[in-house]
Amino acid sequence: MSLFVQKFGGTSVGTVERIKAVAKKVAGFRDQGHDIVVAVSAMSGETNRLIALAKEMQATPDPREMDVLVSTGEQVTIALMCMALKDLGYDARSYTGTQVKILTDSSHMKARIQDIDVAPMKADLAAGRVVVVAGFQGVDENGNITTLGRGGSDTTGVALAAALKADECQIYTDVDGVYTTDPRVVSSAKRLERITFEEMLEMASLGSKVLQIRSVEFAGKYNVPLRVLSTFDDGPGTLITLDEEYSTMEQPVVSGIAFNRDEAKVSILGIPDAPGVASKILAPIGDANIEIDVIVQNVAADNTNDLTFTVNRADVDKARAVVERVATELGAREVVTDDKIAKISIVGVGMRSHAGVASTMFKSLAADAINIQMITTSEIKISVIIDERYLELAVRGLHTAFGLDKDQ
Amino acid sequence: MSLFVQKFGGTSVGTVERIKAVAKKVAGFRDQGHDIVVAVSAMSGETNRLIALAKEMQATPDPREMDVLVSTGEQVTIALMCMALKDLGYDARSYTGTQVKILTDSSHMKARIQDIDVAPMKADLAAGRVVVVAGFQGVDENGNITTLGRGGSDTTGVALAAALKADECQIYTDVDGVYTTDPRVVSSAKRLERITFEEMLEMASLGSKVLQIRSVEFAGKYNVPLRVLSTFDDGPGTLITLDEEYSTMEQPVVSGIAFNRDEAKVSILGIPDAPGVASKILAPIGDANIEIDVIVQNVAADNTNDLTFTVNRADVDKARAVVERVATELGAREVVTDDKIAKISIVGVGMRSHAGVASTMFKSLAADAINIQMITTSEIKISVIIDERYLELAVRGLHTAFGLDKDQ
Repeated sequence: MSLFVQKFGGTSVGTVERIKAVAKKVAGFRDQGHDIVVAVSAMSGETNRLIALAKEMQATPDPREMDVLVSTGEQVTIALMCMALKDLGYDARSYTGTQVKILTDSSHMKARIQDIDVAPMKADLAAGRVVVVAGFQGVDENGNITTLGRGGSDTTGVALAAALKADECQIYTDVDGVYTTDPRVVSSAKRLERITFEEMLEMASLGSKVLQIRSVEFAGKYNVPLRVLSTFDDGPGTLITLDEEYSTMEQPVVSGIAFNRDEAKVSILGIPDAPGVASKILAPIGDANIEIDVIVQNVAADNTNDLTFTVNRADVDKARAVVERVATELGAREVVTDDKIAKISIVGVGMRSHAGVASTMFKSLAADAINIQMITTSEIKISVIIDERYLELAVRGLHTAFGLDKDQ
Repeated sequence: MSLFVQKFGGTSVGTVERIKAVAKKVAGFRDQGHDIVVAVSAMSGETNRLIALAKEMQATPDPREMDVLVSTGEQVTIALMCMALKDLGYDARSYTGTQVKILTDSSHMKARIQDIDVAPMKADLAAGRVVVVAGFQGVDENGNITTLGRGGSDTTGVALAAALKADECQIYTDVDGVYTTDPRVVSSAKRLERITFEEMLEMASLGSKVLQIRSVEFAGKYNVPLRVLSTFDDGPGTLITLDEEYSTMEQPVVSGIAFNRDEAKVSILGIPDAPGVASKILAPIGDANIEIDVIVQNVAADNTNDLTFTVNRADVDKARAVVERVATELGAREVVTDDKIAKISIVGVGMRSHAGVASTMFKSLAADAINIQMITTSEIKISVIIDERYLELAVRGLHTAFGLDKDQ
């Protein structure tokens, strides 16, 4: 007898048949005596259809009206889901973000949840009903409809679980868990039984896009046990838990290998070696709303500096324009950009207490004759930037080097 | 400087282009200095699409969830309409039924409006905004989404006009007003400049489906001047007003001729002539939720009674089954049904004070050798049931007989 919040994304509820299949899955949990709160996304394709309509109306659609528009997507799903459950003989009740009072700030299209009124949901659960809540949406204190931004349905699920003190927040997706790396690149990649919130954050932010980063942060903050599992198969998925519990167990040094090809590199060569130079270069980048990821600075042999940073590939031309202006002012020698790069990170709470993780990584890359362009490290990850042509080769080598091919 | 509530139906907002055209029309009224509250329906086809989805989920979809589902249709339109207005440079704000607090009872799919909170709308109007309200929907006192039933957007428009004490409620449709009869049947049919609420009720209930009956009743009750006009052309349309104003003017005896082919006739022949017989027959029909329109009873030559009534054609088999059971109990001779009938009504406030209207009608029908099967009369209309084959012939003859072909 547990209370589960179960979140189903757009693909899981993409057709009438899939909504019926989800209803059957939920019914199975009810049969076992569990209390269930379901959070759902819009049927896949629907949000994009609505956004396309909006763009036909206004080049930059009004944010308040955009939220009124796109929030209809989940509203359709909650109604259909309740009908499907009722058709199976299970009592159910739907709630929009407004109805369940998912109170947010007023930042349309990227609102943050502040509070949830759990009383009506608790009454429904006590009456034996499945509660079905529209994900992704909320309401501000003036009754305006807000949305949490893309992927916000995960956040809704976690917020509901936190507010209801649920035993688990289960995120159903089209994969059956979190893997040691992308199985499309390394066929021997393994599903992880468990991973810590911190590791998951690093994995998610580095391109293993199983979960939205925000929802993982949220779950970590409120200590909501989060489980990623498949809508279409049965299986335990991957449990995401607090470090404390996890570190008491025997655990591998490195949990997984994340990577992405979304970044580009901007280098400013031959900058005078003087205080404040880095901020003179990076501040205008921030002002231009360009997000920076890795930053590396080194003193060159001639006592000038080389500064290199990475940005999203889509922003590289904008970043170059900003940097070239500053580079002229500073008397720098040259600005070079490269968008044929890849970032690979090894992630693991275990590496905190194990020496030699970095050297294992660099040895593995060297053995494949892969040149490392940049390196950054944190407590639980080491990232390198390499030529994107060697991405798959590098990931496969590292997967073996850290023993991730073996069954756990 | 007037306050107009303007209601646009599904056809008027059926495409992106049409929504933009409506926004231009509204903008034109703003340019003239008028305050505008717009009530809109779902884009044409959308409500049917949603209902079809619901029926795939549940043979008889849950009414509460049905309202959650179909109310998304208007919510999409209000957002798109505001975007279109903003794109033209006019400030606008959308409201769902919940947001503008169109308080209704809890009868899902057929709710009745009880109250509207006008304060936020008045504030918006004062700030120079166009207010765009979702038609057809409301909210009950527990925050459940309700809908007013098909055609409820007209009712929303009238209710808004009444609550805001608007100068006029303008119902935009795909016709340019109310006609003396259906122009597809009588090519010389004329648009009426004015018609009374009572006349409009008779015209609407008899098949001139320009407006929903409920909205006309509502407008009459709260004395909201109602104007029917075309979304696609400019023109004055038809103003629907109170009898009192109207009767001070020179007016024709008969305003229009309405007709329909939706009914079928059920006759029970040879019933014993005893008190309470009619109710014994008609009560079970009411219990079976079958609506009865015309009822005629006559004593036959052999001192038995013949009772005939009409029902919607879709209900005739159900009605026959009910009546046959009662007929056996009563010892009636025979039950006969006929669904090849048509009802024609002449409607006009003027006929109250004019003798000879009925005889003009019967003479006209006789001149065309059309047999009258049933007759009923009220203060402002006379209806006859005839063989449906003669419908067009009869309507054309009556249109001429009452001088409706002439320019007013």
